Amino acid sequence: MSPARHLVDLDTATAVELLASVPVGRLVWNGSAGLTAIPVNHVWRDGRVLVRTTAYSTIARECDDQPVAFEVDALDEDHRIGWSVLVRGRASIDWDAGPASAPTDPWPDGLRPLVLAIDVASLDGRRLVEAG
Amino acid sequence: MSPARHLVDLDTATAVELLASVPVGRLVWNGSAGLTAIPVNHVWRDGRVLVRTTAYSTIARECDDQPVAFEVDALDEDHRIGWSVLVRGRASIDWDAGPASAPTDPWPDGLRPLVLAIDVASLDGRRLVEAG
Repeated sequence: MSPARHLVDLDTATAVELLASVPVGRLVWNGSAGLTAIPVNHVWRDGRVLVRTTAYSTIARECDDQPVAFEVDALDEDHRIGWSVLVRGRASIDWDAGPASAPTDPWPDGLRPLVLAIDVASLDGRRLVEAG
Repeated sequence: MSPARHLVDLDTATAVELLASVPVGRLVWNGSAGLTAIPVNHVWRDGRVLVRTTAYSTIARECDDQPVAFEVDALDEDHRIGWSVLVRGRASIDWDAGPASAPTDPWPDGLRPLVLAIDVASLDGRRLVEAG
């Protein structure tokens, strides 16, 4: 029998630390095709989530000045534990951001001159831990 | 310099296979607190995504007969590649599902008698691959 596990809420400082510790999360919005969640590279800077995108992306067309969420997690299948952090807030797009303004280091190739910034309205996290 | 990478769309059969190959994804909905995405254990059965939940969960309160999305991915930080699959559809909750009806094997402890099923309206996937 596997050990007991339960979910505990993370304090904000820990949640921010975890959010900033990984290079990719999932941008979530309610778009023209419906609810959408896709992995994108991000950085945490000055209390905001920053994501680079291309000029003609769905993100650029649909997210500016809209409510969005951003989810990051780390899940350990072998031990059946993990953590997740969820940010909610309003997105705004800087249509001509310099490289230094958001060093997100996207994995796919291609120029990404736009930066989507999420002003955080809420930030929550939880961790699945082994009891005992 | 790292090798070039670009995104390619997955065919539906491959996307379904990947969706079914992992034990956890992110349920996405537009709830009372705003856009929400949280990791949950799932199974793919008879063309639907199945998720177990508790009687008093936010999922149970907010998702029945509502549009939802379900995102799964596998991301390789070392090689900067990965894949993701996004399902969109309407959720319905079976309030008294037997254990055999949805063998999702949740990681957290506790009884989860409810089963949320997503009837698939769209299913898309993409993979970030090294060029060449």
